[in-house]
Amino acid sequence: MDMPVGSGTLYWFVERHREDTGLFMGARRVWTYRSNFQDIAVLETETWGRVLVLDGLVQMTDRDEFIYHEMLAHVPLMTHPDPRRVLIIGGGDGGVLREVLRHPEVTRAVLCEIDPMVIEVVRRHWPEHGAVFDDPRVQVLNEDGSQFVQTTYERYDVVIVDSSDPVSYSRSLFSPHFLAAVRRVLYPSGLYATQCMSLLYHLDFVKGFYRQLQAAFSNVALYTAPVPSYPTGWWNFAMGSIELSLDPDHLPLKGRSIEFLRLTRYYSLEIHRSAFTLPNFLVQELQYAHGTDR
Amino acid sequence: MDMPVGSGTLYWFVERHREDTGLFMGARRVWTYRSNFQDIAVLETETWGRVLVLDGLVQMTDRDEFIYHEMLAHVPLMTHPDPRRVLIIGGGDGGVLREVLRHPEVTRAVLCEIDPMVIEVVRRHWPEHGAVFDDPRVQVLNEDGSQFVQTTYERYDVVIVDSSDPVSYSRSLFSPHFLAAVRRVLYPSGLYATQCMSLLYHLDFVKGFYRQLQAAFSNVALYTAPVPSYPTGWWNFAMGSIELSLDPDHLPLKGRSIEFLRLTRYYSLEIHRSAFTLPNFLVQELQYAHGTDR
Repeated sequence: MDMPVGSGTLYWFVERHREDTGLFMGARRVWTYRSNFQDIAVLETETWGRVLVLDGLVQMTDRDEFIYHEMLAHVPLMTHPDPRRVLIIGGGDGGVLREVLRHPEVTRAVLCEIDPMVIEVVRRHWPEHGAVFDDPRVQVLNEDGSQFVQTTYERYDVVIVDSSDPVSYSRSLFSPHFLAAVRRVLYPSGLYATQCMSLLYHLDFVKGFYRQLQAAFSNVALYTAPVPSYPTGWWNFAMGSIELSLDPDHLPLKGRSIEFLRLTRYYSLEIHRSAFTLPNFLVQELQYAHGTDR
Repeated sequence: MDMPVGSGTLYWFVERHREDTGLFMGARRVWTYRSNFQDIAVLETETWGRVLVLDGLVQMTDRDEFIYHEMLAHVPLMTHPDPRRVLIIGGGDGGVLREVLRHPEVTRAVLCEIDPMVIEVVRRHWPEHGAVFDDPRVQVLNEDGSQFVQTTYERYDVVIVDSSDPVSYSRSLFSPHFLAAVRRVLYPSGLYATQCMSLLYHLDFVKGFYRQLQAAFSNVALYTAPVPSYPTGWWNFAMGSIELSLDPDHLPLKGRSIEFLRLTRYYSLEIHRSAFTLPNFLVQELQYAHGTDR
């Protein structure tokens, strides 16, 4: 590609979302690290701000991280009537944790991030995120999340999976075995939420995972939000619960502190409700997946 | 950039959404044309299918055009209780016209596309779109849309602006002068809809245009949809009317033929309602724009 480097831009970062397409970003500075688990890079860019990259895939940018993190944290936490104990698997960038801690109901937040160097890098380049790891309600564990849920004796109200995509180390976080273990660490009235790829590039994955969710939980739901720095810029999330209704039209707001809604930049109760409206093609695909006629 | 060309990929198309970031697509074949108005290119790609490019900017891809075209056509046409006469300004790719013609209420659709070569190129590379231009309800005019609305004696129920971005030939389609002329060609109970850029890259433009809309129309509204091939993948639309309510919760469905809802891949009545839910930061920005406290 013949692309003159923009003023101040010294490096081109290229993420291939598929073999023949993807996103590029010009960076003024690049820091790279090699952990026991992955390659970690931090870019300083004009349009996207600071960018965290793991194994070549954009995880977080200053420009749009608020949408992803607010939607992955507040949707489950506002669906639960009293979310006290929260487990985050992955999430080493601290974004979901920051949003979770905005709920005064939360008394304990366990962050199970397999790679301690991710947290070190975030503390260095996003010093404002450092405070969230030091909150007295927080415990950080550097363990494999899929093994942790097999072995812990603790129970949680909400389990959030903020993982990288289901390849390599994260593949195990999208298996029936893992979902069964998540069920075990959740109170029956608890709920589970996960990022769940792009409807336009990964529709077969989404459909397959939706079937797995239905096998593991009585109540399941998908919701979407724009995340411009992720493939297609249109991201999908999934929730499941054994007993709790996920109906966005009947949020259990009574007695809840919702002061944090002044701080959100994307999330609102109206956005919460709208996010569950699925496009017609997905509605049709999921009904097909159920084996029912429309 | 060092990017080995994928199997079957012979050319790299790069669209800079801003100086330092954008989208790339590998193409197996490229056809280029030079009209009196612009450079026109058609790419044949694996991921995006056929892609129409005007002056270096992606206008339409097979993969995601349905979202953009359905949302730009069906939202205004379902908001109007009886949309008989429709004017489309721009829209030479035929996508909005195809969706407009799905409403049996429509008796006349005028497509005012300044560049006849766009239609020629689309007829050649999207032969399935050729039929929509030949529908007996359709009249195609090759005129400057902003001049056409100044001079025509016809009146319309719905005016849709499906233009390229507000630079060069399309700049005049986002001016107070143009909005006043659109008011003139609309019945008082009619409504106007336009594509309106990205909330994440063009927020100042959106805010300024929203103020212009408020000056021209009594009722105005913004709505959004994912359009992955456009900058940020998250697109904004605007509507205005002198008399007609734009409230998505009270669509005038009585007596309407809604058979076309079986054919839509993105649009549904639920999507229509959800699309008007704006993110918290925009709600706050627009209230600021109104000069009111929150």
